[in-house]
Amino acid sequence: MFSVTVRDHMMIAHSFEGEVFGPAQQLHGATYVVDATFRRAELDADNIVVDIGRASEELHAVLAELNYRNLDDDDAFAGMNTSTEALAKIVADRLAERIAAGALGDGGRELDGLVVTLHESHIAWASYERRL
Amino acid sequence: MFSVTVRDHMMIAHSFEGEVFGPAQQLHGATYVVDATFRRAELDADNIVVDIGRASEELHAVLAELNYRNLDDDDAFAGMNTSTEALAKIVADRLAERIAAGALGDGGRELDGLVVTLHESHIAWASYERRL
Amino acid sequence: MFSVTVRDHMMIAHSFEGEVFGPAQQLHGATYVVDATFRRAELDADNIVVDIGRASEELHAVLAELNYRNLDDDDAFAGMNTSTEALAKIVADRLAERIAAGALGDGGRELDGLVVTLHESHIAWASYERRL
Amino acid sequence: MFSVTVRDHMMIAHSFEGEVFGPAQQLHGATYVVDATFRRAELDADNIVVDIGRASEELHAVLAELNYRNLDDDDAFAGMNTSTEALAKIVADRLAERIAAGALGDGGRELDGLVVTLHESHIAWASYERRL
Amino acid sequence: MFSVTVRDHMMIAHSFEGEVFGPAQQLHGATYVVDATFRRAELDADNIVVDIGRASEELHAVLAELNYRNLDDDDAFAGMNTSTEALAKIVADRLAERIAAGALGDGGRELDGLVVTLHESHIAWASYERRL
Amino acid sequence: MFSVTVRDHMMIAHSFEGEVFGPAQQLHGATYVVDATFRRAELDADNIVVDIGRASEELHAVLAELNYRNLDDDDAFAGMNTSTEALAKIVADRLAERIAAGALGDGGRELDGLVVTLHESHIAWASYERRL
Repeated sequence: MFSVTVRDHMMIAHSFEGEVFGPAQQLHGATYVVDATFRRAELDADNIVVDIGRASEELHAVLAELNYRNLDDDDAFAGMNTSTEALAKIVADRLAERIAAGALGDGGRELDGLVVTLHESHIAWASYERRL
Repeated sequence: MFSVTVRDHMMIAHSFEGEVFGPAQQLHGATYVVDATFRRAELDADNIVVDIGRASEELHAVLAELNYRNLDDDDAFAGMNTSTEALAKIVADRLAERIAAGALGDGGRELDGLVVTLHESHIAWASYERRL
Repeated sequence: MFSVTVRDHMMIAHSFEGEVFGPAQQLHGATYVVDATFRRAELDADNIVVDIGRASEELHAVLAELNYRNLDDDDAFAGMNTSTEALAKIVADRLAERIAAGALGDGGRELDGLVVTLHESHIAWASYERRL
Repeated sequence: MFSVTVRDHMMIAHSFEGEVFGPAQQLHGATYVVDATFRRAELDADNIVVDIGRASEELHAVLAELNYRNLDDDDAFAGMNTSTEALAKIVADRLAERIAAGALGDGGRELDGLVVTLHESHIAWASYERRL
Repeated sequence: MFSVTVRDHMMIAHSFEGEVFGPAQQLHGATYVVDATFRRAELDADNIVVDIGRASEELHAVLAELNYRNLDDDDAFAGMNTSTEALAKIVADRLAERIAAGALGDGGRELDGLVVTLHESHIAWASYERRL
Repeated sequence: MFSVTVRDHMMIAHSFEGEVFGPAQQLHGATYVVDATFRRAELDADNIVVDIGRASEELHAVLAELNYRNLDDDDAFAGMNTSTEALAKIVADRLAERIAAGALGDGGRELDGLVVTLHESHIAWASYERRL
């Protein structure tokens, strides 16, 4: 099994609901350093999993929809906590939609799976892994 | 599949038995930067795998039992080499016991698996992965 | 010249005023991974610059006043942009006040200087350096 | 499941064929920081997966065959793009051959799998995973 | 004293002349992860050293002139070894020229100094520091 | 001003005397990831500060005298705390002696200064800087 990973980041504000979150119930923020891993059983005719440049562009486009925003004001997240793990799934699912729509070319449809990891600090990160 | 990882560290002394270890047969030491990854198929009602604060506290408590010690003097490790990979299992198993005892709440019992990685330097690390 | 550095982090929300900031004029957020460096010409009687544990506690206390907050709502920052470099100075000055008040003991008063670095992502960081 | 990872690096020149590569069709180069992960279900009699020193030596020997070279001039790679993911497989397969030939001792033959990751920059890396 | 640092990278091929370089006399390559640090005594009216976005663009523009190239073929480097430390000076001097030409606005002319660091691997890097 | 930095590591045991050290008064240990920075005003005839390979060898030789040892048993450290900052000075001074003795060639005698940084964990490190 092969994989290629690209890294980007986003800077957002949000707050959480639920006693378990303690002071994180207040409006605060995070830089998420985001790694997107693309998996594929065999390489394509160019001997790659996916072009790193195109993969980076697609990840950047997905993050641009969230970057520099207060996620509490985004209707897509109404009534849910935008925890690091929940955001990992949102980024992965949005990348998967783009891939299904052809954003990574025909080869992109040969991908087997996707892992998205969001690093919220030097001591905590979360991942979501899914099939394609 | 979702996961959350938290990082902490411990600083211990130990020595190894066996020719394969060369100079590491002498009493020496290590800083282990320790990553504990908690896996879960679905998020809980708060939209998280586990609270990062509580997960950090449990990892810290497990490492506190080992931190600032000479492991050669710990009866729990009599007759065994406390290699990086062996210590990864010890940390993982002790975390698993705590989770089974309810340390991460009822939700902690929904966890599917655990990975513990100990980084012994910038060029070597070891992991142990187990089900919960 | 000797130095000791300790690392911690904070997660805040804020917005900026000024066209130069583009989309960062919107309410967003950041994780700042914060390094505080303490400088001293000679070591003390214990052969250290400052106790790493106490230095970590003081840095944590300074960051706790900012952590999990929307800095736009903090009167201390009214009318100013809480840029990464400006926050580096705020953290450094607050640490300096604590040191002057004896938070690091008599030895703390022997310190010559302080550098505070705030990492806002894997590709951007800012520092402020001052004498003590 | 246990694993041990060791890190080394190599510095090579190469070029790619195919429009998808854009400017990387020109002769350029890369530092690959290379992580080799060795997996094993149970530890050996010394309580290790593999000796970290020996694992490092084998990885270094494999990389030495590629290091400081223009891969375009290496007959082994004639007619293929030496992409990061393709090189990950080459390093993994060459390590597997050495292990099969006894380079890591009899214990090396108990290894279950191997993962090789090549980091081409701070924002992109690729992996190849195989059984042993 | 304040500073802001931005990070980018370039991937080049080159060779060195001189016995001291050993196998690096052969055509090989490197990824250079490049940090550019901009220093200034006082913050500007926006409370910043320099806009991180603009600083990143200028660094990217300087690196784009070198990226994906064989530096042995670049007339600018005829008869010189493009060592990591020499390239750090080249990047710094080209950034300084742009700043003097107004690339970072009038505020850019208030900058006091510049440091450029090129990381050639996880275990070696070089810097060049100059006044502006 | 130019500089070149090389990284290596050592794994030692030791204990500290003095109440300020708390549990670190017990025999424990550390991995020190060690960065040695060599400074020089102008590059040499080969266009370098110092050969990275030779610099790495000298740093490795200095660390080899300490690696895999219990520093409490080393006569060189009798009656002193081998704190991270104190060890940074020891490594720097031993490197300086070697350079003075010609270990880096005639060019090594053109070096202006040396900085040694010891990272004891992901959240704490110490440096010592001296002239040559």
